[in-house]
Amino acid sequence: MADKSEKMKARLPRGLVDRGAEDIRAVEKMMATIRSVYELYGFEPVDQPLIEYTDALGKFLPDQDRPNEGVFSFQDDDDQWLSLRYDLTAPMARFVAENFERLPKPYRSYRSGWVFRNEKPGPGRFRQFMQFDADTVGTPGVAADAEMAMMMADVMEALGIKRGDYVIRVNNRKVLDGVLEAIGLGGDENAGRRLTVLRAIDKLDKLGVEGVRLLLGAGRKDESGDFTKGAGLDEDQQTFVLSATAQAFELSETSPVGTRDLSDMAVTDDGRLFYDNIVGAKISWSVARNETGKAGAQELLEIATLCEAAGYGSKRIKIDPAVVRGLEYYTGPVYEAELLAEIPNEEGKIVRFGSVGGGGRYDGLVSRFRGEPVPATGFSIGVSRLMTALKNLGKLDTSDVIAPVVVLTMDKDTESLGRYQKMVAELRAAGIRSEMYLGGAGMKAQLKYADRRGSPVAIIQGGDERAKGEVQIKDLIEGARMSAEIADNAEWRAARPAQVTVAESELVGEVRKILAAQAEERARGK
Amino acid sequence: MADKSEKMKARLPRGLVDRGAEDIRAVEKMMATIRSVYELYGFEPVDQPLIEYTDALGKFLPDQDRPNEGVFSFQDDDDQWLSLRYDLTAPMARFVAENFERLPKPYRSYRSGWVFRNEKPGPGRFRQFMQFDADTVGTPGVAADAEMAMMMADVMEALGIKRGDYVIRVNNRKVLDGVLEAIGLGGDENAGRRLTVLRAIDKLDKLGVEGVRLLLGAGRKDESGDFTKGAGLDEDQQTFVLSATAQAFELSETSPVGTRDLSDMAVTDDGRLFYDNIVGAKISWSVARNETGKAGAQELLEIATLCEAAGYGSKRIKIDPAVVRGLEYYTGPVYEAELLAEIPNEEGKIVRFGSVGGGGRYDGLVSRFRGEPVPATGFSIGVSRLMTALKNLGKLDTSDVIAPVVVLTMDKDTESLGRYQKMVAELRAAGIRSEMYLGGAGMKAQLKYADRRGSPVAIIQGGDERAKGEVQIKDLIEGARMSAEIADNAEWRAARPAQVTVAESELVGEVRKILAAQAEERARGK
Repeated sequence: MADKSEKMKARLPRGLVDRGAEDIRAVEKMMATIRSVYELYGFEPVDQPLIEYTDALGKFLPDQDRPNEGVFSFQDDDDQWLSLRYDLTAPMARFVAENFERLPKPYRSYRSGWVFRNEKPGPGRFRQFMQFDADTVGTPGVAADAEMAMMMADVMEALGIKRGDYVIRVNNRKVLDGVLEAIGLGGDENAGRRLTVLRAIDKLDKLGVEGVRLLLGAGRKDESGDFTKGAGLDEDQQTFVLSATAQAFELSETSPVGTRDLSDMAVTDDGRLFYDNIVGAKISWSVARNETGKAGAQELLEIATLCEAAGYGSKRIKIDPAVVRGLEYYTGPVYEAELLAEIPNEEGKIVRFGSVGGGGRYDGLVSRFRGEPVPATGFSIGVSRLMTALKNLGKLDTSDVIAPVVVLTMDKDTESLGRYQKMVAELRAAGIRSEMYLGGAGMKAQLKYADRRGSPVAIIQGGDERAKGEVQIKDLIEGARMSAEIADNAEWRAARPAQVTVAESELVGEVRKILAAQAEERARGK
Repeated sequence: MADKSEKMKARLPRGLVDRGAEDIRAVEKMMATIRSVYELYGFEPVDQPLIEYTDALGKFLPDQDRPNEGVFSFQDDDDQWLSLRYDLTAPMARFVAENFERLPKPYRSYRSGWVFRNEKPGPGRFRQFMQFDADTVGTPGVAADAEMAMMMADVMEALGIKRGDYVIRVNNRKVLDGVLEAIGLGGDENAGRRLTVLRAIDKLDKLGVEGVRLLLGAGRKDESGDFTKGAGLDEDQQTFVLSATAQAFELSETSPVGTRDLSDMAVTDDGRLFYDNIVGAKISWSVARNETGKAGAQELLEIATLCEAAGYGSKRIKIDPAVVRGLEYYTGPVYEAELLAEIPNEEGKIVRFGSVGGGGRYDGLVSRFRGEPVPATGFSIGVSRLMTALKNLGKLDTSDVIAPVVVLTMDKDTESLGRYQKMVAELRAAGIRSEMYLGGAGMKAQLKYADRRGSPVAIIQGGDERAKGEVQIKDLIEGARMSAEIADNAEWRAARPAQVTVAESELVGEVRKILAAQAEERARGK
């Protein structure tokens, strides 16, 4: 085993990461808050395993151009194909379909967990990541969609994000579908092309109108020379699509949040959705003059009305024609939570953070199993992404976790170790996080270990102290401060002593005193 | 999509399960407690992804007789094999090896998560399950093993399991290895046979001495007719192995916990480990008279001394020759947490619950990557199994989670829905778990929905109430009790009214009052 020539390389597969203490604690704190909001809304936890039959997952992945790609798959003993879930929605749909009769309907549930994408990893793009979802299954009414948008807003505020620093953007696939119908892309046979068009529209914020026009037409070569095949629309079709989305998109980009009063929104008979713009003049947004487009606009108006009635109107939830959502399975309202705060990105550039979650109505997912209509809507929070944003905003402070007190092992014989072990047991019994140093190193290296751990206190008992029934207690925080900062004598005298020697029986009390003093100093420093 | 003839079957692959609200909440509660103990001991959270390179996981699975079986594996784009982790230890070893220089040593960490076994599922045997581990890497001293045993004991008590209702059983692979060496099974070339012998010993509690003797010899046919190949030991070898384990095992089975005083344990020069038996006479346990066996016994004695010194002696941690632990990678002390409480099993039979977790020293796992010795020890709790036990013992009561108040939707027009939505928003703002009914059903079905959810209160506002600016509030708990129980008039008058009508502005206050009365009644009923 210890032969260097034979050793294996310790390495992680691409696109996967280990998580450290700070991130785990931050995520836990954040998820507890999200959970409390979902619970407040009456959702129940339920979760599914990470493996499903491949066919139960369907082929609904974004950016999945080749069949059987995008998911991690393997064959079972009986030759059936299994896959790791790529989201939490498809397994939930399987679960609800399988247990349909016994579940109360509408069925309101939430779940969190890891999902997997077998894709090329990139910066901030992982092959395993965590989602936190809530879904309502069994109701066609857009009141359920409105509720999702409101709940996302409440989640943002519960996490400490101020009103105005986030926005929930709502659109409706029916509005987009109406446009696609109008240019002759209706029908099952055009499902693939429709998705290509939708994904092109979804890139308006990244590529701008001219970039998207290329994707709607013959295709687009990016800076690296990679060519993306386009939807093959002719010029008239391109213009129609862009007039219904890009123009509205630009308006949405330039208008500050909250300047549109949702209650002023209306749909006209000729299929135009309009609302106030910044300066109060009516701005209209072209939707297709077909039934699909009008129904979509009508639903948006209903959502806006419900949100307004519940006090979630301006500044929190806005109707926005630029929201697409990449997934193929959406059939109605789609929504997205966006952080407006400007935060440093991976390269340190200050940017608007963008989407931290979203979702929409997926009336077909449960139906696939049931052979009857089972409408549903839900949303998903990208846990790592939201955590990154909150950490940057200082909303996930975990500095209240104190590193352990370390009892040094000055003598290594079993009897002495037994004594040190007893001290640790007493400290722990008093609720003080602590440990006995378990390595083989000498005192200096042990203090270095305590320093690396960020320990607040070290306990020392060598032969001399033991003979007198005493222990030495080092205040490592004060010690570090004193050696770094203190220059004159008056300060030195005023400072807490960085080291005290007390009777063994006073160990716990004295450590408690030092920890309390450190806590007070931290509070003062904040 | 809604064509019945084409519908897919919603089904879970074998050996996988969905988890419901009660289990999820119980696990969360339990894990928070375990986490607090690990933290108290100075361990830090860190976790690894669920996918690793197959070769990094090694071949350390129990019951894995055929190569490449036992784990779920798939090939990456670059043809390298990836696998789902089968435990948390192997990925942790990869992580520590990869980040060795920057980590404080000894490195104390904990983690929880799903692990996967590609095995034949059975009752209580799943292909995906959760573990919760703690590990100390970088110290050869058995003080680290003793600490693990003590921490397991503390976890049990923190979870509400009384002293005497659990025991941490400790053994040492070196003691077993000494026996194997003595019968000529030392050396790398016998690794496979050694494992077969160890796994046979591990089945003493299930098969008894004669069953295990068959597994040590030519093999054994079970009741279903399946044949398990044996280790091929001759009769003398079988007898030697059984005298060193089965005899001791029987003692361990018949002695009540806590009758042996660990401090009285000793190892003699000729390699016998002895301690007091039930009636105070010395009972000796044969260990092989070779260096390996003696070193093993010496380490056990040291662990016993340390546990005793820290106050974890009798009744909590005992040395037990029957502990084997199935995994190949253990190299020294092994330990197991056993619940002695008698609990109904899957078939409703009352049985001693048995092991809920365990672990041991695995000095070779990190070394594989480092080409230098990196000793380590750790343990793993089987989360579902422990949760099942605790639920049976009534230690994971989650009845404090109250179902949501349901605001019925008597009128379904957008304006009315907006009013109901506003009521819900007010209740939620007051911290009251609540929801607006989102389905299409009438009042009776809505009340049935509330009943299925276990809702404490229903809010009703039809046209009449609305005209008067009032709402009706139904106490569903009291309502159910009244219709079920109350017989005479006096009782009826004393009971809380099951239904009140109040002004809209009093909605929140009145609901709060009813919930408080229900809480009081629950507390009284307990």
